[in-house]
Amino acid sequence: MIGPLDNLVRSLARLPGLGRRSAERAALALVRRPEHLLDELSAALAAARERVRCCDVCGGFTTTDVNPCPLCTGSGRDPEILCVVEEPGDILAIERSGGFRGRYHALLGKLSPARMTGPAELRIQALLDRVQTGGVREVVLALSTDLDGDTTAGYLAERLRARGVRVTRLAFGLPADSGVGYSDPLTLKRALGGRQEVA
Amino acid sequence: MIGPLDNLVRSLARLPGLGRRSAERAALALVRRPEHLLDELSAALAAARERVRCCDVCGGFTTTDVNPCPLCTGSGRDPEILCVVEEPGDILAIERSGGFRGRYHALLGKLSPARMTGPAELRIQALLDRVQTGGVREVVLALSTDLDGDTTAGYLAERLRARGVRVTRLAFGLPADSGVGYSDPLTLKRALGGRQEVA
Repeated sequence: MIGPLDNLVRSLARLPGLGRRSAERAALALVRRPEHLLDELSAALAAARERVRCCDVCGGFTTTDVNPCPLCTGSGRDPEILCVVEEPGDILAIERSGGFRGRYHALLGKLSPARMTGPAELRIQALLDRVQTGGVREVVLALSTDLDGDTTAGYLAERLRARGVRVTRLAFGLPADSGVGYSDPLTLKRALGGRQEVA
Repeated sequence: MIGPLDNLVRSLARLPGLGRRSAERAALALVRRPEHLLDELSAALAAARERVRCCDVCGGFTTTDVNPCPLCTGSGRDPEILCVVEEPGDILAIERSGGFRGRYHALLGKLSPARMTGPAELRIQALLDRVQTGGVREVVLALSTDLDGDTTAGYLAERLRARGVRVTRLAFGLPADSGVGYSDPLTLKRALGGRQEVA
């Protein structure tokens, strides 16, 4: 394939959710009518690069001119409950669920011995500082349900409990719109372990 | 969601093969570590914008400094057979198949009464001129197997035959690695109609 087109395909294929095939289709569409898609995407990337930042307080996404972000400064959010997530995008997902009215703290990653990510690489000290400053009653750990997520949860729970704060974690169980037959053994085991009284 | 991030998601979601969900994941990954993915993608887009062009002869993709493209100028390709495709990307797909050793002509679209695309919007006159100039013995129509593709094939066949050139079209039939049970009725009907002696 042509050099600059091939580079574009490779660059697109590095995005999550885009396989080589889709990246190629996307690249062809981009160069096919550059004045439509390509120029718009270039401008959107430039604007995002210039204006999107991580909030100094929670680590979630915000813009350069709004820092700390509205979730950190807004009234009507319970400052006593702090939800800890790995990625800024996780905050968006939880906000969409409408199930949480406290404040957030993004670690910008998770502990991972395999990837050599230790506590110093994450926003863990900032979390402990926030809790230390007082006013936080409960920390909800909304971390991934994999090995690194468990490691991170265990590490944080220990450090946080030492500061006299309640530490909880999102429930394990079956996802919505799913069935027992589709669930993996570990999910089922955890869902059984966490079974609840029918109201 | 944050303004510039939302714009980026919308811009990505306009690419073929990217749903809203994948576009969001991609956008989050882009802004999460801009010095990796975002800057690379921006540069790749800029380079493609500046250097990728459609070849003046065949309409396929090439670079500004190589026009006409190597497929048009290279020896070892039969100039007597011309393969007509809709999009520049189709040339890449046919080249990958290794099943064609002639030259190409991309129409940059197909006739579509519904979308108001007539012959003047496509590179049809250029095709007729190439045939007129002489030296072309056969034109292979490699067009989509939908209504607009059929319309385009019919229109071209008539105009080309009037110029004394042989006009063929890609065979209809079952795709590779597929089965009768997975095929739609029209494909099966066409595959039956085009059945061939077992060698």
